Amino acid sequence: MANTFGDKWSFTSFGESHGAAIGGVLDGVPAGIAIDFDMIREELKRRREGVSELGSEGVSARAMREPDEVEWLSGVMDGKTLGTPIAFILRNKDARPEDYEYLKHTYRVGHADKVYEQKYGIRDWRGGGRASARETAARVVAGCIAKQQLAAQGVHIQAELIQVGAEKDPARFAETIARYQQKGDSIGGIIECRINGLPVGTGEPIFDKLQAHLAFAMMSINACKGFEYGTGFGGVTEPGSAINGLSGGIAGGIADGSEIVFRCVFKPTPSTPKAGVKGRHDACVAVRAVPVVEAMTALSLVQFLL
Amino acid sequence: MANTFGDKWSFTSFGESHGAAIGGVLDGVPAGIAIDFDMIREELKRRREGVSELGSEGVSARAMREPDEVEWLSGVMDGKTLGTPIAFILRNKDARPEDYEYLKHTYRVGHADKVYEQKYGIRDWRGGGRASARETAARVVAGCIAKQQLAAQGVHIQAELIQVGAEKDPARFAETIARYQQKGDSIGGIIECRINGLPVGTGEPIFDKLQAHLAFAMMSINACKGFEYGTGFGGVTEPGSAINGLSGGIAGGIADGSEIVFRCVFKPTPSTPKAGVKGRHDACVAVRAVPVVEAMTALSLVQFLL
Amino acid sequence: MANTFGDKWSFTSFGESHGAAIGGVLDGVPAGIAIDFDMIREELKRRREGVSELGSEGVSARAMREPDEVEWLSGVMDGKTLGTPIAFILRNKDARPEDYEYLKHTYRVGHADKVYEQKYGIRDWRGGGRASARETAARVVAGCIAKQQLAAQGVHIQAELIQVGAEKDPARFAETIARYQQKGDSIGGIIECRINGLPVGTGEPIFDKLQAHLAFAMMSINACKGFEYGTGFGGVTEPGSAINGLSGGIAGGIADGSEIVFRCVFKPTPSTPKAGVKGRHDACVAVRAVPVVEAMTALSLVQFLL
Amino acid sequence: MANTFGDKWSFTSFGESHGAAIGGVLDGVPAGIAIDFDMIREELKRRREGVSELGSEGVSARAMREPDEVEWLSGVMDGKTLGTPIAFILRNKDARPEDYEYLKHTYRVGHADKVYEQKYGIRDWRGGGRASARETAARVVAGCIAKQQLAAQGVHIQAELIQVGAEKDPARFAETIARYQQKGDSIGGIIECRINGLPVGTGEPIFDKLQAHLAFAMMSINACKGFEYGTGFGGVTEPGSAINGLSGGIAGGIADGSEIVFRCVFKPTPSTPKAGVKGRHDACVAVRAVPVVEAMTALSLVQFLL
Repeated sequence: MANTFGDKWSFTSFGESHGAAIGGVLDGVPAGIAIDFDMIREELKRRREGVSELGSEGVSARAMREPDEVEWLSGVMDGKTLGTPIAFILRNKDARPEDYEYLKHTYRVGHADKVYEQKYGIRDWRGGGRASARETAARVVAGCIAKQQLAAQGVHIQAELIQVGAEKDPARFAETIARYQQKGDSIGGIIECRINGLPVGTGEPIFDKLQAHLAFAMMSINACKGFEYGTGFGGVTEPGSAINGLSGGIAGGIADGSEIVFRCVFKPTPSTPKAGVKGRHDACVAVRAVPVVEAMTALSLVQFLL
Repeated sequence: MANTFGDKWSFTSFGESHGAAIGGVLDGVPAGIAIDFDMIREELKRRREGVSELGSEGVSARAMREPDEVEWLSGVMDGKTLGTPIAFILRNKDARPEDYEYLKHTYRVGHADKVYEQKYGIRDWRGGGRASARETAARVVAGCIAKQQLAAQGVHIQAELIQVGAEKDPARFAETIARYQQKGDSIGGIIECRINGLPVGTGEPIFDKLQAHLAFAMMSINACKGFEYGTGFGGVTEPGSAINGLSGGIAGGIADGSEIVFRCVFKPTPSTPKAGVKGRHDACVAVRAVPVVEAMTALSLVQFLL
Repeated sequence: MANTFGDKWSFTSFGESHGAAIGGVLDGVPAGIAIDFDMIREELKRRREGVSELGSEGVSARAMREPDEVEWLSGVMDGKTLGTPIAFILRNKDARPEDYEYLKHTYRVGHADKVYEQKYGIRDWRGGGRASARETAARVVAGCIAKQQLAAQGVHIQAELIQVGAEKDPARFAETIARYQQKGDSIGGIIECRINGLPVGTGEPIFDKLQAHLAFAMMSINACKGFEYGTGFGGVTEPGSAINGLSGGIAGGIADGSEIVFRCVFKPTPSTPKAGVKGRHDACVAVRAVPVVEAMTALSLVQFLL
Repeated sequence: MANTFGDKWSFTSFGESHGAAIGGVLDGVPAGIAIDFDMIREELKRRREGVSELGSEGVSARAMREPDEVEWLSGVMDGKTLGTPIAFILRNKDARPEDYEYLKHTYRVGHADKVYEQKYGIRDWRGGGRASARETAARVVAGCIAKQQLAAQGVHIQAELIQVGAEKDPARFAETIARYQQKGDSIGGIIECRINGLPVGTGEPIFDKLQAHLAFAMMSINACKGFEYGTGFGGVTEPGSAINGLSGGIAGGIADGSEIVFRCVFKPTPSTPKAGVKGRHDACVAVRAVPVVEAMTALSLVQFLL
């Protein structure tokens, strides 16, 4: 079940970027939860455009054209969950396969086009098909419902961009991104995520360690190249006597009640004018990955809290 | 099923470090595979002692006392697998709970003692119980069988220690570790793992990305604080134009046929003389984690190749 | 994941009978399979109306009003599967919740109304909501794709009604059903299903026995009260010497290459004029269960043949 | 994972009947449960010998020779569960492969010998290997722990033999079985099982219906040829007006709070003197299946009650 995330509160994702629709089915969501539809709209906007001060340049042409509207098919009545599967779709209004006709016989470097064709023998060449970043919109919708459920249990998730290229001062992220934008190039970024309020004891001690599930969730996001928590890779130069006790919020795979901090790194997009791809481009995809990181964190945590 | 890894070729681990035995059950292993028992013995030795030139100082007293002998209970007849579940145990010959009596009412800093008790309300205080590093011996046995199966399919896994503290020159690892050992302190390390021969198309494009499963497997190892592949965290400072095409062996979650390279970082053990823990200690647990990294890599990959 | 059937070739079902739509997502369907849309239309008709000679009386008013049209949302391009999740919906065009307003505060005897409210604390009272027989339409669509895949592998499934009440002569089924119809009462039936072409070795020997999975699939259909294969319950009076060797197509949980025969019994619907439920009614739901039995058989078998 | 039953409170079974041992691993059992070892011993005796008045004739030679002693390897400390995996084994003390040497090149009619070899290409010919009824001893141990946990939650399971051949009067079961025993033949039986105290709402409404899981559990027992609940197959001749409301304890897949009643039928063993198999034989395996039915019922129900 390669398109399902989670086994208790499961999210099944479907849809090609230029087919009829993308969407998802959530199974295991308890009955009686009031859904905050406005928050879902906000988060979709955040994924689409990035935060405003950075996003002005960091938005792809397609994202601008196509506002995401969620159509709810089942599992919700009078704004509340029924305990039955929640199915939702986002229509691909802007599906213009002809724009991508040229991809029918081309594999874009740094994209999954070629391996898809090798794996399946067939490929939806229309805008990346299933591998398109558009798929993350469904993750954001699902993640919002998970977040709402977690918030009701006192669990809060907050992700933010902490590095763009070599730049660590948020005040300078916009100009750094603009610089790469203008050069027709792109740059990576690091996102840090903090989890508060997770009950002590969350996680399992052997394989299903909390950090293993968080890593799995993050590494399932396109362009994510690494995950670390607590002292992470930087901690390698510190002796035990200096860092002993800095748990990063997890001991032996189990939440210890302190704040959990993890980071993940996103590579620059390969689709740039410099690489021969025309049109506006996303100079720093990490900007728009922030709500996706939060969504996947929520989807991961909610499995443990049922 | 928090103690099972994998769902097609599954490994269920059991056992407290000072109970009767630790062990595992492998389900889904095809029939007719000849098991190389010598290789299993060698790998267990490697886990127990570390590679010789580094391990001389880096071995805990307990590991020295207790050679690991595998007792095969089922699934194997005349040295070949039957296709039925393979159960094996390693007796805890050296189970001396009285050595740990003092832990009955103490929680060791940097260990999982406290969260276990908070989670379960009960705890096997004998030497860390289930959270003990001894549990990785069962992973190594299971990983060996996975490796043997992978090797028959042309897939090879090779892990090595590439950094100890700030030191990146392997020729100096032994003296670096010895320095921390003498100070009664400990230090972290980075292990790099290379996978060759994995068929193009291995992995799934959305959630079950190959890198997500590798990250999950690595982060399930005690003391592992981070995972990265390809350009990893270091790549954040490089523009797209410089690193586009450096896939790290995986595109869109799917093996692209080139060598896969990933790294993971291990923190220093908190159990040191400096931290008040008596007896010999492991100044750099990363040394002994090398075969465990290979084992978990094998257990992860074998799920995809059935 | 209570709304998902199967773990390799999985079918996730969603939708309330009087919400926006019912539908499903199929994950794990191989790429490149040509879908026979006509066959799907035929099977949906068969489920809706029953076979013609019996169905003339055995059809509910609602089924007559609402032809089922499948809307394909993803996973199919140019009539072929892409290897990505296949999502489809059937709109509930005839959703008239006001017809069911009276059910808001009533529990129908013999229906799941009450237990749903007890379980979830909330209930979609509109026409049975999720418990409605309408949900089986999504099973039929999914089952058709499974059947098409099985047929390509030489596996054929054929179910038929073999008993209505005490009547075992198919020539008299129509008049038997008509008799109960006229009395405002209902009657049960037995369906027999034959599987041919299943490769020797299909099934697993311990828990995942082929017969266990077939029983699970059948007992998941509304109104099914029993399952038997081979000699079944009737065989209890026969000595071993008489029936030894009559395997029913399965030995030790594994297909032995001979025809597999199983039967399942469907109870009469509790919604009858005699029980105070107005309008046309289905005097023998077993008639319309025949394609559902085939669909669930196909969904069960396809898990074993990937 | 064909040798694992359940996914929340899972039981993984292993062992060939004439290998070193059979056994199991239970994962998901909560911490702090006191285990009643005497009850486990009693249930194993009941499985081995059948109830005394019937069992005197209905016991195989092997069962008489080999008392089952459980060796606990992990997960239990001071008689209480630790919350970690519980591994246990039963040594095959009486493993005399030479007794079965003749089976090396023979397939017994009505047994799984041949399909095993066809499926795996290799087979443990020693006494049926994995397909031996001995495997049910591990089920009984696991089922006892499930039963103890269920009993603590007020759920009680009681199975009994209600028919032997055509005989429905328990007072005459012993003589009926003796008659077949003397003729060197065998006969089937029907077991009825009653579940009381199951909380309203147990079960899931679509695929994971309570009756579907019970059927799956029963049909996974060797020699079981059918399952029915409530009105079952016999109800087919009754009109809706007569049986409406007789739920059998389950409505729409969900426990409705009334007693659940189901029945399953066991075929006669094919291994009889009449069929050319020498030595004492089990004239009615249904006798010894009673505790196995209870065990599998418990293992099925416990999944729903965590």
